[in-house]
Amino acid sequence: MSCSRSLSLAFRWVRTSRGAFNFRHQQLSCLSIRAISTTAPLHIHETSSSTSATKEFKFTTDAYPQLERNSTFSEVTSEHVQHFKDLLGAQSAVIDGLTTDAADDIEPFNTDWMKKYRGHTRLVLKPQSTKEVSQILRYCNANKLAVVPQGGNTGLVGGGVPVFDEIVVNMSRMNRIRSFDENSGVISVDAGVILEVAEKYLADRNCIFPLDLGAKGSCHIGGNLATNAGGLRLLRYGSLHGNVLGLEAVLPDGTIVDDMCALRKNNTGYDLKHLLIGGEGTIGIITGASIICPQRPKAVNVAYFGLQSYDHVCKAFREAKSQLSEILSAFELMDGRSQDLVHDVTGLNRPLGESYPFYCLVETSGSNEEHDKAKLDDYLGHVMTESIVDDGVLAQDETQAQSLWRWREGITEALSHLGGTYKYDVSIPLTDLYRLVEDTRERLTKAGLVGDDGSYPVREVLGYGHMGDSNLHLNVAVRQYTKEVENIIEPWVYKWIQKRNGSISAEHGLGIAKKKFIGYSKSDTMIKLMKQLKNLYDPI
Amino acid sequence: MSCSRSLSLAFRWVRTSRGAFNFRHQQLSCLSIRAISTTAPLHIHETSSSTSATKEFKFTTDAYPQLERNSTFSEVTSEHVQHFKDLLGAQSAVIDGLTTDAADDIEPFNTDWMKKYRGHTRLVLKPQSTKEVSQILRYCNANKLAVVPQGGNTGLVGGGVPVFDEIVVNMSRMNRIRSFDENSGVISVDAGVILEVAEKYLADRNCIFPLDLGAKGSCHIGGNLATNAGGLRLLRYGSLHGNVLGLEAVLPDGTIVDDMCALRKNNTGYDLKHLLIGGEGTIGIITGASIICPQRPKAVNVAYFGLQSYDHVCKAFREAKSQLSEILSAFELMDGRSQDLVHDVTGLNRPLGESYPFYCLVETSGSNEEHDKAKLDDYLGHVMTESIVDDGVLAQDETQAQSLWRWREGITEALSHLGGTYKYDVSIPLTDLYRLVEDTRERLTKAGLVGDDGSYPVREVLGYGHMGDSNLHLNVAVRQYTKEVENIIEPWVYKWIQKRNGSISAEHGLGIAKKKFIGYSKSDTMIKLMKQLKNLYDPI
Repeated sequence: MSCSRSLSLAFRWVRTSRGAFNFRHQQLSCLSIRAISTTAPLHIHETSSSTSATKEFKFTTDAYPQLERNSTFSEVTSEHVQHFKDLLGAQSAVIDGLTTDAADDIEPFNTDWMKKYRGHTRLVLKPQSTKEVSQILRYCNANKLAVVPQGGNTGLVGGGVPVFDEIVVNMSRMNRIRSFDENSGVISVDAGVILEVAEKYLADRNCIFPLDLGAKGSCHIGGNLATNAGGLRLLRYGSLHGNVLGLEAVLPDGTIVDDMCALRKNNTGYDLKHLLIGGEGTIGIITGASIICPQRPKAVNVAYFGLQSYDHVCKAFREAKSQLSEILSAFELMDGRSQDLVHDVTGLNRPLGESYPFYCLVETSGSNEEHDKAKLDDYLGHVMTESIVDDGVLAQDETQAQSLWRWREGITEALSHLGGTYKYDVSIPLTDLYRLVEDTRERLTKAGLVGDDGSYPVREVLGYGHMGDSNLHLNVAVRQYTKEVENIIEPWVYKWIQKRNGSISAEHGLGIAKKKFIGYSKSDTMIKLMKQLKNLYDPI
Repeated sequence: MSCSRSLSLAFRWVRTSRGAFNFRHQQLSCLSIRAISTTAPLHIHETSSSTSATKEFKFTTDAYPQLERNSTFSEVTSEHVQHFKDLLGAQSAVIDGLTTDAADDIEPFNTDWMKKYRGHTRLVLKPQSTKEVSQILRYCNANKLAVVPQGGNTGLVGGGVPVFDEIVVNMSRMNRIRSFDENSGVISVDAGVILEVAEKYLADRNCIFPLDLGAKGSCHIGGNLATNAGGLRLLRYGSLHGNVLGLEAVLPDGTIVDDMCALRKNNTGYDLKHLLIGGEGTIGIITGASIICPQRPKAVNVAYFGLQSYDHVCKAFREAKSQLSEILSAFELMDGRSQDLVHDVTGLNRPLGESYPFYCLVETSGSNEEHDKAKLDDYLGHVMTESIVDDGVLAQDETQAQSLWRWREGITEALSHLGGTYKYDVSIPLTDLYRLVEDTRERLTKAGLVGDDGSYPVREVLGYGHMGDSNLHLNVAVRQYTKEVENIIEPWVYKWIQKRNGSISAEHGLGIAKKKFIGYSKSDTMIKLMKQLKNLYDPI
């Protein structure tokens, strides 16, 4: 589908043979993922895939036969279902999978968007209040019924879908923005509010949400918190542990934890909310949160670079930190393969005329357009004259800025058109960050698994991520998920990361995917302490 | 003592009768607290007080006879002392108060700097490694010996000194800066490193510590973390929950929690360190931390205002947030009485010629001096022409900036020269923030307790604080601590705060002072959950 919007000219600069740099204009194409309207945000759930990886979409229990259902949990009966129907009232609050005609209705809650995990749930509950969540959990606790909390189901590690027959507690009907205080910038929301909905609400009130990520059109704020999502602008606005001021949650026994503080400073005892942030719903379901939101920047600039090596990317980042300093709001890395892929899937013109091994997207957000432009000009001049950057384009308006951002945010979407993807969201000290992509590609190639025709399971190995947070997304795009590929990558990839004092999960969490590998990032003592806490809140 | 340094002229601007504003120069006096060298930072511990409040310095057990020693704890014997001498080796690591000649040596560890709390310890241990801390706690746990962890002893709620005969585990010998990574800006330190030492170390490496507070010359980073200190620049650099990347601690049973992560993103399980940040040493002793440090700003500007009302302060703050935005690094409120007090104690010229009911200190930190000055000029022009600010002075160099800061940071010091102070560190939504000072003053005056001569227990009621964090420091300066004054203020003050959804402890913690009042900020459920956690790590 071609772009219906006409775009103004982007501002482009290129380095001349003598090291100086010139500016020139160029038509910047509007990015669209084929078959998806470009005027709509990229909703992860709206895509469909027709590759073999999803055609042979297995149950998680078949793909991972070593996973065992805990036999102490009961199975859902029609009496249980009736109890929940009586409790939650509304027809839309209970999807009863015990009856065969509901099988299609229940399937989207059983499967993750990557088509990698597929559970056997036969009951989905959609509570509309914290009290209802509490009543559900109290009942499940008393009746030994396993549950899995589910937000927007945009997770990447299988943490939000059932493995066995766990009851899905889907939070989509708890979608109310509770309040906003214009003096303090504190927003209070239900857990099921979609990130982009909150973002738009705040835009009308001269604020922004401190978190932004590609799945914002579908993901829930509660899910973001449970995963401790980092996203695109952590280097500027900090982590959720810093920005979440208050939390409301329900513990497994039904206890409502009401800690909806709206104050930046409140030192009155242990700060329990931090256990739930990043706790992946294992010790409670987050039902609400109050979050401090920064003011909306008056000026936002976005530039997109082509660079010759990862070493040049590191240099460009160091200079950005130094020269753009307080206005730097994002510094994203994309390798050449990731941008080739976006280009191949969308068929649109690239922002830069030529191809480069590496690309960066730099964003500034500040309060004074003139000052910000001056800082950015100085920076761009410097990286061009010093031959750090080869070519670049600077967005001239918000539409162009969004188009450039889609060359970064569209990678996940484009990958989903290829088939399945082994995704590794890791943190590695900056110097070694990209080497993991190269080493993985080399390893899979040596094993004879990478190739262009259908006989090779691996299509491509690529990397992108957040330079500002030392956070790499390593992606191995496959024609189908196979144990052969998986066993070549894992646990080798985790050992590689452990050796460099990295983290095997930077921002996506452990879920089902990395649960058994936690030992590569946490010591036995830390794991023991975690188990102790899990047992405190949810003894089995 | 007069100031030996000659200062350059400060840049001052005043509003003319027609609403415009002029700039003129004025000599800015160097602030010195009498009897303390002005060239040295204001070390809280170096002052002495000779007022009646400290002459009649009671044991905490006498001042609060309702406090009861837990009889399950053993008393320290000479065998215990010998064990620790054998364990810690060095002579300086054990102060043995069982022998009478060590009484003077041990007293500083028994008493807080405000002369408000005084314990009965007879043993001080100064471990030099995490292993030693572990060995101490394991032994104490096995032998039922109570301990109190102690940092720089600059706390304001009696949390760092013993009440009964608890063994003091003083962290001053664990004072090593372990490492600093220039690429990431992550510093790794022992818990006993003095904040100012780290600050100076970072200054040489083009970084700053993300926390700054008046007691930095004495306080330990470990103590800052245990208290979750907020300080002067939280509005810019965020809280310790956001900036501490890794933590090392020892639990009561001696378990070493080694979570010295140096990554900004690491989602591999429950983030236990947040229980220790703000945990006030009740579930473990922090022994080390890795902290992300912002780059050192290239330009810092400090302005000091005189304003006619608290309403004007709020307006000036709102405008600062909007106009100074990303470069605003501090916005401090000081009432007229607090500045009168600093003036009276130091005898030096005020920054502004006249007296005002309110003062503000505004600091900007940015990367471009020209841009920052332009933003600040626009802001100052606006607040003057709009009659929000009556008079102001702008520091022309770092020395002047420091002098202006001391009119804010010197308040605590000046108060300590008056006698005792009832200190209330609270958080209240901004609109109502200062009204607490007015209401407290009115209440104490109506009770006939406030007066200039020695027959009145209360000398003064004043307030100052961090506008950016809705954090007020209410101070009731007394000639002596009396139950009469205390009972008029407490629990009335906490009820006042509770009614406005504030926090009874913004950044100083609960300690002994506020332990029994936690119910005014936390629900019964939250308190029950806290007790459950305390019991998990430290069952008695």
